[in-house]
Amino acid sequence: MKKENQIGAEITVRKADLLNARARVRDFVRHTPVLSSSYLNSLAGAEIWFKCENFQKGGAFKIRGASNAIFSLDPSELKKGVVTHSSGNHAQAVAIAAKEKGTEAHIVMPDNSAEVKIQAVKGYGGKITYSKADLCSREDTLDLVKNRTGTTFIHPYDDDRIIAGQSTCAQEIFEEINNALDYLLAPVGGGGLLSGTALSALHFSPQTKVIGCEPELASDAHEAFRTKAWVPANEPITIADGLRTALGRRNLNIILEHVKDILLVSEQEIKNSIKLIWERMKLVVEPSAAVPLAALIRNKEMFQGKRVGVILSGGNIDLKKMGDLFS
Amino acid sequence: MKKENQIGAEITVRKADLLNARARVRDFVRHTPVLSSSYLNSLAGAEIWFKCENFQKGGAFKIRGASNAIFSLDPSELKKGVVTHSSGNHAQAVAIAAKEKGTEAHIVMPDNSAEVKIQAVKGYGGKITYSKADLCSREDTLDLVKNRTGTTFIHPYDDDRIIAGQSTCAQEIFEEINNALDYLLAPVGGGGLLSGTALSALHFSPQTKVIGCEPELASDAHEAFRTKAWVPANEPITIADGLRTALGRRNLNIILEHVKDILLVSEQEIKNSIKLIWERMKLVVEPSAAVPLAALIRNKEMFQGKRVGVILSGGNIDLKKMGDLFS
Repeated sequence: MKKENQIGAEITVRKADLLNARARVRDFVRHTPVLSSSYLNSLAGAEIWFKCENFQKGGAFKIRGASNAIFSLDPSELKKGVVTHSSGNHAQAVAIAAKEKGTEAHIVMPDNSAEVKIQAVKGYGGKITYSKADLCSREDTLDLVKNRTGTTFIHPYDDDRIIAGQSTCAQEIFEEINNALDYLLAPVGGGGLLSGTALSALHFSPQTKVIGCEPELASDAHEAFRTKAWVPANEPITIADGLRTALGRRNLNIILEHVKDILLVSEQEIKNSIKLIWERMKLVVEPSAAVPLAALIRNKEMFQGKRVGVILSGGNIDLKKMGDLFS
Repeated sequence: MKKENQIGAEITVRKADLLNARARVRDFVRHTPVLSSSYLNSLAGAEIWFKCENFQKGGAFKIRGASNAIFSLDPSELKKGVVTHSSGNHAQAVAIAAKEKGTEAHIVMPDNSAEVKIQAVKGYGGKITYSKADLCSREDTLDLVKNRTGTTFIHPYDDDRIIAGQSTCAQEIFEEINNALDYLLAPVGGGGLLSGTALSALHFSPQTKVIGCEPELASDAHEAFRTKAWVPANEPITIADGLRTALGRRNLNIILEHVKDILLVSEQEIKNSIKLIWERMKLVVEPSAAVPLAALIRNKEMFQGKRVGVILSGGNIDLKKMGDLFS
């Protein structure tokens, strides 16, 4: 049997894990609404349901995985606290879930993190340790904190509990939409959301094809999917800041097995799609969340007349930068 | 008996008119969701329900009144079409409702209207006649179109059918919120929404105090409320562009009778409140829609521990201008 994390290794997240995750986080995460827009339906020629994770606690789906992981720790682990590294939505999510359990969240953040994100983590009671911006320094700093404090590392995506937690988003969608969706589209960065979504479809809506959506400028998941081999992310500069991270190996294994395709979109297509969601749906979404709609519009013929779910993954954006986007 | 439209004149919108309006527009307007934010609840020290009319057809509550007015026309009137003057949300609403009935909507728009609004009206099939920007020229042009075409004038607010239509927003709120609200806050410009909301509370939730919220820079409703006399609006320059219009006389009569108070807010308070709604609720709202939350926060002690409804009146905003707002 192949070693955990190698290509083709056994998938260790089971249906029971998904159901347990749902039960574990149900009363804590927000059951977010599913909205639609007749304008966007007619623009795309499809019936689209948007799952509004921008309304989620902490402003993004990340709390689903973070709370499932943290709520499954045993009391002695919980007492020691948790640690992660992230400059984005996962940092806030870990801080929120740890606070709920009355334990400490140590967050390693690059020293060039946006002030607004630092303040958000502090606002939720997270204890910040700064590192340099490169991944190597972040991981070293994390190890230092971990060894000093004996805390449990909550990986942002390459973790079964995180994957099971993120699966609860699609579980809610499948419960809410009566007739089966033909497609369900999710953005892919590290692959936590996409792999969880794919497992959710496998067990709860096998007719639904799950598709990952990724910026051309951060196409490591697309390439790994084509070549069936993990590839590094080369410091991508896409505006979809949540998707700059490299795909996780465990996530890739699930994606290779249960995701139908990975579609790419350009930066301009992402911007157009943000504008459509802001202007037409009146929803504040972050650039990463607009990637699936961009992929849907770019591949219109593929989705013609189909029932399509789209996960709006989050809404955390620095509004000061919006002017640039729309000018 | 006082003449219609004089201070103290009889209010001619009855409970039956509100119920008929609800039945008439029910299948056409969107039943918009009510959302809440634990962050804003704790910031304000109150339990707040936000009625999301930014999700409404056409992006604002205006379709409620416009469709009630247009759907109540008799077949011969309907055949001739309708006319109104507006550079904003009412223009789009009239165009949408007229299109639904297969009749023509003539919209008199000032020749300095924003291109985006002109395009929106055209997109819904409205026939635009341009006038100069001043009210006098708008009214003259409207009379010309009306006389030439024999169309029915759909006033933006000083009209019983419009008031009954706007009342359906609060009717939905009262149906949805189980325990009675202590307060319900609405912005006030021409007064169509505020007067309809007040009548809705009178008949369907008499425990609820209705309060109007207005920019200091466009305080004609506040002054009229204090002095019990209609006052003109002096070309107000508030960023809340939907509230620059003068209060209607018919609306003032209802407001004097059934509105508890009118609260004022500064431009900075409106900007802060827009930012809170965008950042914390992830909702795109226009400046006018942020005025009630600004009033709630400015008058915190008044609403302490209370159950408060807030009508987010619309979400039509030129995103290019958002940069200025947040920089």
